[in-house]
Amino acid sequence: MNTKDLLDQIAFIKEIDKVKYIQRKTKLFNSDRNENDAEHSWHLALMAIVLAEHSDKPIDVLKVVKMVLIHDIVEIDAGDVFLYDLLISHSNTDAERLAANRIFGLLPKKQADAFIEIWEEFEAGETNEAKFAKSMDRLEPLLQNTSNNGGTWKEFGVGYQKVYEKKSVIKEGSETLWTYAEGLINESVEKGILKK
Amino acid sequence: MNTKDLLDQIAFIKEIDKVKYIQRKTKLFNSDRNENDAEHSWHLALMAIVLAEHSDKPIDVLKVVKMVLIHDIVEIDAGDVFLYDLLISHSNTDAERLAANRIFGLLPKKQADAFIEIWEEFEAGETNEAKFAKSMDRLEPLLQNTSNNGGTWKEFGVGYQKVYEKKSVIKEGSETLWTYAEGLINESVEKGILKK
Repeated sequence: MNTKDLLDQIAFIKEIDKVKYIQRKTKLFNSDRNENDAEHSWHLALMAIVLAEHSDKPIDVLKVVKMVLIHDIVEIDAGDVFLYDLLISHSNTDAERLAANRIFGLLPKKQADAFIEIWEEFEAGETNEAKFAKSMDRLEPLLQNTSNNGGTWKEFGVGYQKVYEKKSVIKEGSETLWTYAEGLINESVEKGILKK
Repeated sequence: MNTKDLLDQIAFIKEIDKVKYIQRKTKLFNSDRNENDAEHSWHLALMAIVLAEHSDKPIDVLKVVKMVLIHDIVEIDAGDVFLYDLLISHSNTDAERLAANRIFGLLPKKQADAFIEIWEEFEAGETNEAKFAKSMDRLEPLLQNTSNNGGTWKEFGVGYQKVYEKKSVIKEGSETLWTYAEGLINESVEKGILKK
């Protein structure tokens, strides 16, 4: 055993505890309690496992799970950016890249490189795994907002067009899940919890 | 697509949100805020991925990750039982088995059976994957307690002998991690945060 490597891994494990303090804008289901990034990532990982069969393309489920488990770790340094924020780009900012290098960089070199690569792959959103992982990331808050009488849509005045556009990313991962999501969006308009 | 299957999967995804409300006895690192089961499960999943190389036996990492992601879902119905509770057995209670059947039973039959099987495998602790998953489950609170000046050991008056006995489960998964954990336990005694 290389003791230095193990100690570096333990340092990383301790550092990522901070993810549990990062509050998202979205609330838990039928709740007014904000979700944090660790809870969100856990939920996405289980969603990916449960819904994997709906991916349009073959996927390596472990890779998808790794992506969703680590995708928000950069927010320890860079903070959570609201999906509908008009001023700040939601992803791929310099701050996030710096954060990835610092935090994953705590790990032994080879492992750090592998984590940064998988995080970059998720951010780029081009591979089958990244597309499916992003579908999960867009589906969870849609389910939450519909359970919360409009949730962040109402709270921040986000309308149908914007929601439809952002959520259509789900289609890249799964036609089946997109059909379901589209139904939820239309239903939300009918119920008056999403403004057209 | 079988719409019924998808709706059952969505029902399961909504139900497991409740895991986020289940408070553990242990606190976050360097903190007095209790950890919840979703945060704990997320942390174990990443620990399993990061520390997989230290498993003494070959393991299917995805299976270990599935185990740790779902291992506490039964607590939605059965509640969290403290590792050092003297009256209630920590695992394999009838209440937990009933909970597994109800909650995983929300999923389509084939998937429900697969989840129950993997949960039972974890509980039995006999396969390589279950042993490594249990190592993670014992290692995280050890790291937390040492970061919290004794944490639950102090709070609930748990002594060296009991801690050593419970933590030695780590050895079943990894000699390397056990050597590290044993060092932490001894160091805790030296520092006076664990009573001998």
